[in-house]
Amino acid sequence: MKKFQVVGIGNAMVDVLARADDSFLAQAGIEKGIMQLIDMERAVTLYGSIGPAREVSGGSAANTIAGIAHLGGRTAYVGKVKDDQLGAIFAHDLRAQGAVYETTFAPKDAADETGRCLIIVTPDGERSMNTYLGVTEFLTPDDIDEAQMADSEWLYLEGYRFDGPDSHAAFAKAIAACKAAGGRVSLTLSDPFCISRHRDAFRDMIQNDVDLLFCNRAEMLSMYETDDFDAALLRAADHVAIVACTDGSNGAHVLAQGARWHLPAIPITIVDATGAGDLFAGAFLWALTHGFSLPDCGHIGNIAAAEVISHIGARPEADLTVLIAQAGLTPAT
Amino acid sequence: MKKFQVVGIGNAMVDVLARADDSFLAQAGIEKGIMQLIDMERAVTLYGSIGPAREVSGGSAANTIAGIAHLGGRTAYVGKVKDDQLGAIFAHDLRAQGAVYETTFAPKDAADETGRCLIIVTPDGERSMNTYLGVTEFLTPDDIDEAQMADSEWLYLEGYRFDGPDSHAAFAKAIAACKAAGGRVSLTLSDPFCISRHRDAFRDMIQNDVDLLFCNRAEMLSMYETDDFDAALLRAADHVAIVACTDGSNGAHVLAQGARWHLPAIPITIVDATGAGDLFAGAFLWALTHGFSLPDCGHIGNIAAAEVISHIGARPEADLTVLIAQAGLTPAT
Repeated sequence: MKKFQVVGIGNAMVDVLARADDSFLAQAGIEKGIMQLIDMERAVTLYGSIGPAREVSGGSAANTIAGIAHLGGRTAYVGKVKDDQLGAIFAHDLRAQGAVYETTFAPKDAADETGRCLIIVTPDGERSMNTYLGVTEFLTPDDIDEAQMADSEWLYLEGYRFDGPDSHAAFAKAIAACKAAGGRVSLTLSDPFCISRHRDAFRDMIQNDVDLLFCNRAEMLSMYETDDFDAALLRAADHVAIVACTDGSNGAHVLAQGARWHLPAIPITIVDATGAGDLFAGAFLWALTHGFSLPDCGHIGNIAAAEVISHIGARPEADLTVLIAQAGLTPAT
Repeated sequence: MKKFQVVGIGNAMVDVLARADDSFLAQAGIEKGIMQLIDMERAVTLYGSIGPAREVSGGSAANTIAGIAHLGGRTAYVGKVKDDQLGAIFAHDLRAQGAVYETTFAPKDAADETGRCLIIVTPDGERSMNTYLGVTEFLTPDDIDEAQMADSEWLYLEGYRFDGPDSHAAFAKAIAACKAAGGRVSLTLSDPFCISRHRDAFRDMIQNDVDLLFCNRAEMLSMYETDDFDAALLRAADHVAIVACTDGSNGAHVLAQGARWHLPAIPITIVDATGAGDLFAGAFLWALTHGFSLPDCGHIGNIAAAEVISHIGARPEADLTVLIAQAGLTPAT
């Protein structure tokens, strides 16, 4: 038995959540509903203009790994924070959830700080993310422990982390170590704009390395530069063994082995959309590594996504194992 | 017109909120429902043992001042934080709420950090607080701007801040400046254990300086070392012009000018009791400085307390002005 079911690699950061209406977004020049990269200066200015906020650990893949740990999966996370108070908060919350997080903290005198994401939540529950990457940008191959990668059934790679100079090499090292030991690779496309920045790199990885692709409808369309969603799904399914594509209030689509399943969304009032895709992926991977059928993996992903968007913050608050049991879902094997 | 309606002085800190059951409290040696002072070492150990947490600005008087600012009152806060990430969060949240916070940050190389309060919320909504004071302990007369104190209708003093070597002198300086300019002084007793540490100092201040006393039932009984609640209320009313005493699910009692009012609590399910007394005081002071009758001040205090205990965190989330208007309350003058 491998030590880990899933090891995730991504941008480590703390979310700073504040509420505002759409006019604030316009005034502050924030593009609604997407992730935009900002520098420290902009982060300080923007922070000064938002209302009272709350701080919770975030980071897309870190949310996914926290979800797997919450469900009882054996999981670890790789992503850089600094030896500062926000870095300590990030590390604590991941470990307290039960995930392994063996990291080298960037030193106290590093020029950059622990990354943070200023998330403006509008009354419709949509989140507009403003990311100061900080030290998490500087993930290098040195941060990858090949033994850890080899000791995991699955690798989970965050598309956002393509935005760093040495991170492609870090991903390549992790993939090689995991695959050489019989492990499989999953990838989340993260964001349509992230895809447009790195489409070639994503395409290469999907065609050569990825066994399970996570994305949402907008990302799928952006990836294949088409308006034809079904065609894009089929093209993705040509390259990877499993496609798991979320579709907002329309739920999720899973394609594998020539089959296709549509899993309707769990009806819920959206309070804060942050983390929906992250938790879908986490619960899907947990279910996949615990013997559930592929459509049930999608159903379980939907359950986790619905829970996390029903409250502020991108990590589960209710006990997901209870929600899954209440839905009558049990492993197929 | 004075620049400020209320200036508050207290322990500046960030709350670290985590959920746990009663058995965790027993195991960790945490006394339930009260505030206990801990050192940095204990703070680190305890933080390592709690589950995933969320960080929100706190501090008893700071919550009160945030409440007044939220309601549109002219208000300022005095309390020390360090020039670190948690200090920046504290300052931001207070200013973003509309309060004035002109502070000298303790320097980056100070031995202590910004104070924090590890709050364990049990399933019954009760909070058990573990306070690492950090730099907030070192409030001195130098931190008191006499012109600011003179320019406020009311001073609001946090009893917890009696736990610092130079803070009695700081309070005395603030009181003298405020009173000399015709201002009035309010005090919250904060905590029964805090009272037992400083009963003489509290008594002197109540008899000589305090015009409005905030406390809850347990604090009132502790202050006058009696089991007779009504007798204690009357003794307090002998010394101060207004007594505003909260009484848990029984609401609040207001005594002034020989009269006594009982204001029933707003029925609510308690999610997190943190901040109930703080927001009662904030809304009461706001109402008092905006022409509401004394019983309506108590009623408005109850409305704010009910709002803040209906969610995690000690600062208002719903619009309190709307809740007050919905209750049909309008100024008497």
